[in-house]
Amino acid sequence: MLNAPVSDSLLHRIVLGIEYDGSLFHGWQKQSSPQLATVQSDVESALSRIADHPIKLTCAGRTDAGVHATGQVVHFDCAKDRGQKAWIRGSNSLLPSGIRILWARETDSGFHARFSALARRYRYIIYESEVEPALFTRQLTHFRGRLQDQLMDQAGRYLIGEHDFSAYRAAGCQSKTPFREILELSVRRKNDFVIIEIQANAFLQHMVRNIAGVLMLIGRGVKEVDWAHQVLLSEDRTKGAITARPEGLYLIDVRYPDKFALPRLNFGPMFINLD
Amino acid sequence: MLNAPVSDSLLHRIVLGIEYDGSLFHGWQKQSSPQLATVQSDVESALSRIADHPIKLTCAGRTDAGVHATGQVVHFDCAKDRGQKAWIRGSNSLLPSGIRILWARETDSGFHARFSALARRYRYIIYESEVEPALFTRQLTHFRGRLQDQLMDQAGRYLIGEHDFSAYRAAGCQSKTPFREILELSVRRKNDFVIIEIQANAFLQHMVRNIAGVLMLIGRGVKEVDWAHQVLLSEDRTKGAITARPEGLYLIDVRYPDKFALPRLNFGPMFINLD
Repeated sequence: MLNAPVSDSLLHRIVLGIEYDGSLFHGWQKQSSPQLATVQSDVESALSRIADHPIKLTCAGRTDAGVHATGQVVHFDCAKDRGQKAWIRGSNSLLPSGIRILWARETDSGFHARFSALARRYRYIIYESEVEPALFTRQLTHFRGRLQDQLMDQAGRYLIGEHDFSAYRAAGCQSKTPFREILELSVRRKNDFVIIEIQANAFLQHMVRNIAGVLMLIGRGVKEVDWAHQVLLSEDRTKGAITARPEGLYLIDVRYPDKFALPRLNFGPMFINLD
Repeated sequence: MLNAPVSDSLLHRIVLGIEYDGSLFHGWQKQSSPQLATVQSDVESALSRIADHPIKLTCAGRTDAGVHATGQVVHFDCAKDRGQKAWIRGSNSLLPSGIRILWARETDSGFHARFSALARRYRYIIYESEVEPALFTRQLTHFRGRLQDQLMDQAGRYLIGEHDFSAYRAAGCQSKTPFREILELSVRRKNDFVIIEIQANAFLQHMVRNIAGVLMLIGRGVKEVDWAHQVLLSEDRTKGAITARPEGLYLIDVRYPDKFALPRLNFGPMFINLD
């Protein structure tokens, strides 16, 4: 039986770095139906067994169904710090192979995975080929044809800076404000891959995939380069493109103030060598 | 209902290039139990529907359960050439997403996917990391630690040329002769990946994985470089290492005489940029 959590003052705050294959889960967030496997529910179950009391996780970025992460960051409180080895190896031995705890640190109680984060970085990977590949089908977005990546990169520059991203947010997005600041946005080609990479202070729901949808229409030549800007200025979701598929999307990094001294890994997914 | 095949003289011989994710199938070869999904049975089913009569495939290299292919080549005979589009797009629309026909050609009846092949090329991909990755778990072989890739490459050179590979063949291997000629064998590092690549006229059962097993023990420093040679000279399977896992293995190319004018694709898997 699991014990009740102890009083706050005695708690240890633990931070974890997590990688997962989003194609195997119904998104990050725990669902009301316990039949739906989510990353949060699987990780909470494993950690609760290690901690010997119920664990509740807070994450840096709630990813949708099908979206992957190589750099998700979470925190939780527990009565006793079991040590890095228990949090990493112990949890991994209880987790399905599609989720792995990459690192663990005890931190001070001022750290918050969501509110302490300075920026999140996502990578959207498009693979171009005449025939859809049989391998990695749920780890990239396939496109039949050739995208004009340089036009996509130019178009993306209109979105850099602080803007009202109403036109790039999901209809059901819960955020109180549509303002976000994009710090970096680049589109580059590596052979048959086109990679969209976006760093922002935070993201609205579907924001990366809605930007990817707009940039792909521009890359196909269906829309002009400044259309990304027109969509932004419209502040109207119905003016944009369809939401790009989740398969090619990865949460690859979350940046925190240096004082927390958290590990920084190479940006994933590791299976693609971009440099 | 499917029609009976017509007489041989009226048949068209079609060659296909096939890619598949071996983690989803019980190997290439059709099994007696129809419940076991194999690449051959799925492709034969799809082609039989397109051809409107039963199709039997002959492949260049029978891959084991879990082994992938980006460059498998097969041939079959059919009463009517339905055209490239039907063989490619038509079949792909009937196939599971883990198998894709990449190209199709009609060729003369002198072509044989197995007997016309001059050489096969396999790539074995090892990924080194402290924690096993959550992504691509069945598309690479994970190793916790650092392999001495240069020692592995040196060891591999002992195996180049024509030899009796009895010590590197599976106990149940059906081949009449244990002699094979390795044309190329290299081990190279790309960041945290170690890639073993072997081209031979043909391979014995488990030959690549048994070579990989020996080279990995040498790369770990458990065995000396010349142990690969001692194992070879022993002609005794029990003197070698355990068979390396199938996850990291890809059949990436089959070479035929130029007169057949078959397409040559870039060596896969495309998701790893090695150059």
